[in-house]
Amino acid sequence: MEQRRPIAVLGCGLIGESWAALFMAHGYDVRAWDPSPEVLAGFAAKLERPLSQLAELGCDPGARGRLLLAGSVREAVSGTAFVQENAPENIPLKRALYAEIEAEAPADTLIASSTSALTWSELSPGMCSPERLLTAHPFNPPHLVPLVELYGISERSLEQAEIFYRSLGRKPVRLKKDAVGHIANRLASALWREAVHIVAEGIAEVGDVDAALMHGPGLRWSVMGAHMTYHLGGGQGGMAHYLRHLGPSQARRWASLGTPQLTEAVCEALIHGVNEEAAGRSVSELEAERDALLIKALQARGRG
Amino acid sequence: MEQRRPIAVLGCGLIGESWAALFMAHGYDVRAWDPSPEVLAGFAAKLERPLSQLAELGCDPGARGRLLLAGSVREAVSGTAFVQENAPENIPLKRALYAEIEAEAPADTLIASSTSALTWSELSPGMCSPERLLTAHPFNPPHLVPLVELYGISERSLEQAEIFYRSLGRKPVRLKKDAVGHIANRLASALWREAVHIVAEGIAEVGDVDAALMHGPGLRWSVMGAHMTYHLGGGQGGMAHYLRHLGPSQARRWASLGTPQLTEAVCEALIHGVNEEAAGRSVSELEAERDALLIKALQARGRG
Repeated sequence: MEQRRPIAVLGCGLIGESWAALFMAHGYDVRAWDPSPEVLAGFAAKLERPLSQLAELGCDPGARGRLLLAGSVREAVSGTAFVQENAPENIPLKRALYAEIEAEAPADTLIASSTSALTWSELSPGMCSPERLLTAHPFNPPHLVPLVELYGISERSLEQAEIFYRSLGRKPVRLKKDAVGHIANRLASALWREAVHIVAEGIAEVGDVDAALMHGPGLRWSVMGAHMTYHLGGGQGGMAHYLRHLGPSQARRWASLGTPQLTEAVCEALIHGVNEEAAGRSVSELEAERDALLIKALQARGRG
Repeated sequence: MEQRRPIAVLGCGLIGESWAALFMAHGYDVRAWDPSPEVLAGFAAKLERPLSQLAELGCDPGARGRLLLAGSVREAVSGTAFVQENAPENIPLKRALYAEIEAEAPADTLIASSTSALTWSELSPGMCSPERLLTAHPFNPPHLVPLVELYGISERSLEQAEIFYRSLGRKPVRLKKDAVGHIANRLASALWREAVHIVAEGIAEVGDVDAALMHGPGLRWSVMGAHMTYHLGGGQGGMAHYLRHLGPSQARRWASLGTPQLTEAVCEALIHGVNEEAAGRSVSELEAERDALLIKALQARGRG
């Protein structure tokens, strides 16, 4: 990826903002496009907070790339090295966008979709060069949380994308197979199902489930993955010892996990519980607190 | 909890070591007992690493409590304010221990069991004063990971235990109902089931699943719980908006989660995968890395 060619950001909602700030903070010029002129007009202002957060994390504000608001997809993608697409989760809409990108962007431009709900196999049909398409799913907020989940069919495109995202301080991870929910949202969904079950069964309050996660497994998973944790749980014998001695008890625990339904009563308990936990803080205030804590955690990781 | 009365640590394995170091680092004298004279003889040496880690986290080594190796349960518990029991997960054995503690400890001494696999209801029968018994489940390693999950039947005992654990920098969380796996291990088990499914289905490698967790949801859950995350996922409308608009898609995702079996082939894939991820590092080396990263994360939390 040459430093000189700009990056296109298509779709300027929350995810587009975060990507644009990240690219600019790392010196790339960004060409942003959105079908809504109002969204586009307000875009530069929306970048101020993520850009200042990235400055806190060590990105030199003096080396920032420039922002160009593009009047068309053509203007956004021509001459770019990389397109990050953040359009709504709508297959025909995204496919139409890819057709336009393929017509207007240089032949070697990679097209990375931030899609959360859709898969590469649903998005690629109709493309002239499907090897240019990658799903590159970030985790919110993408300028702070380093994960990017990649899937594509071209080894060369995947390698290029990995090098690019790593140069932005991201942690790209590859899927070997296209999967709905990629990896992280599948894990998050599995955990939340049990978190909802615990509330539905009256085992603990919403805020206490969240506190248990933050001060227990969440903290530990921020430094070591789940598989490796069980490897350590096996002592000197590692995962093999763990599976031999504790595998059956895990299987029993799996069988005891809940399969809650989001009934009206369960929904009410969840809404009531998060409101108690929020204790009057607005969603914006909670986001700001989350970001401040994420920045501290990322700064700690960076320390030698 | 008076600062002057010592704390008894019964059972001096990995969890007992960690608790003893934590109590001593906060100025409490510890009376340690274990049925194995060899374990007891080696106990002081085992405390060196956790004690030095706690010094890194700001506990003054000059204010450390003393360690007494007790020759009997009676010697360990007499005159104590608090007993932390870390015996093997064996109901008759633990019940026999509680009978001995009730006979020898002051009448107001709380008995806190570190049990992971058993419940309060299984442990309390036969006690003269079951209101003195609490399950107080820590998360490994307990001197670093702040979570302690509490269950008991006496409000007064629970409050005393919460004050005590908070004074040690712990984050106690209450269960409203006795539950196998408390909260955190239920969440961890639910997540790992899907992590195993992802490997079993060939969606991603063990190391990539772990990396996705550490750099994505794990990092985010270390600063915000799962319920609150979906509250933010609903935008300004919060959890109510999220459930109304995205509840059905979560329910569909729940239905698509895996129910893997720990077959020989799956076990082999897990063992092979963690060995690749470990890349030659021993379990002890991995533990030391985990602890160093936990200490950095905890230091970051402490920063204003």
